[in-house]
Amino acid sequence: MKKNLGAKDLLMPNPVLVIGTYDEEGRPNAMTLAWAGVVSSNPPAISISMREQRKTLANIKVKQAFTVSFATEDTMKASDYVGLVSGNKGDKVYSAGLTAVHAEHIDAPYFAEYPVTLECKVMDSRKIGQHINIIGEIVNVLADEEVLDANGKIDVTKVKAIAYDHTGENYIAASQIVGKAFKEGSALH
Amino acid sequence: MKKNLGAKDLLMPNPVLVIGTYDEEGRPNAMTLAWAGVVSSNPPAISISMREQRKTLANIKVKQAFTVSFATEDTMKASDYVGLVSGNKGDKVYSAGLTAVHAEHIDAPYFAEYPVTLECKVMDSRKIGQHINIIGEIVNVLADEEVLDANGKIDVTKVKAIAYDHTGENYIAASQIVGKAFKEGSALH
Repeated sequence: MKKNLGAKDLLMPNPVLVIGTYDEEGRPNAMTLAWAGVVSSNPPAISISMREQRKTLANIKVKQAFTVSFATEDTMKASDYVGLVSGNKGDKVYSAGLTAVHAEHIDAPYFAEYPVTLECKVMDSRKIGQHINIIGEIVNVLADEEVLDANGKIDVTKVKAIAYDHTGENYIAASQIVGKAFKEGSALH
Repeated sequence: MKKNLGAKDLLMPNPVLVIGTYDEEGRPNAMTLAWAGVVSSNPPAISISMREQRKTLANIKVKQAFTVSFATEDTMKASDYVGLVSGNKGDKVYSAGLTAVHAEHIDAPYFAEYPVTLECKVMDSRKIGQHINIIGEIVNVLADEEVLDANGKIDVTKVKAIAYDHTGENYIAASQIVGKAFKEGSALH
């Protein structure tokens, strides 16, 4: 039986993304968010949303750039920590044990501990409800050699990215392959 | 060692969403997409992106409404199928074995086989590159009793949602809990 649960901010799965920015004095900041998704393939672009008071938002306004690192099982504690603590209070990048490195293509830091990071330039932003929604063009993907397959492509089973379950407030494994896209349904043709 | 992989439409994980719409004559359509994410909590809203020639986009323009069902391990074949076949060619909802039911709060169909569905009204849309990005306000969440826990909340381990790995074109399990959000990082405080 179907039940109506009312209006809720629900999606399954959500990504867990660590956003890297510099403030106007070049100090690195990291924050975690889950309200995000791809919005375009050409140019490649993603949407991230955050509340207006975030230090990250102030930084993005100044630098018009940010990195997006995918939280993984190995980086879960640091990723959770930078989501808990405000960037307006001290150096949480240091407290989290993260190593900020200036990205090559944009004026934002990436964190060496994450195996896969997107370098993004701001394309657009708008207010939606209580969130600011930012569209970032992905100008480069940076990946550890260790998570690439023999053809140099990112191997999802090596990255071990995690997802966010908003209802239960859990982190979820997102690395076990259960089917082939554009193949599973071909039997129904 | 970090490698530059260039500009790519990458996010890990992406959701796998089946979008339900009616055309102007009330015929149901289903399509699958992965370029999507939450954009706002209050009001709850999500972003979905699709190419301009999609039948679903034409339907959304007419009805200003759509449903979003989360593809699951049990519905993987049908979800993959409706992503492979164009809605401009025959009745793919029927071919996929899906049961279209008129949603209660909006003029769009949901598909009875999916355990969790969002009912959405169009708030806004814009062109980003070659995609049309639509913002939908989530006016109701519809869920099977079987996927709710004892408190009536959605249990991620029962839904067994799948994710989309764009690089390897795989479906990925997204139901195994590996940590508690807003807890894992508290040891670093």
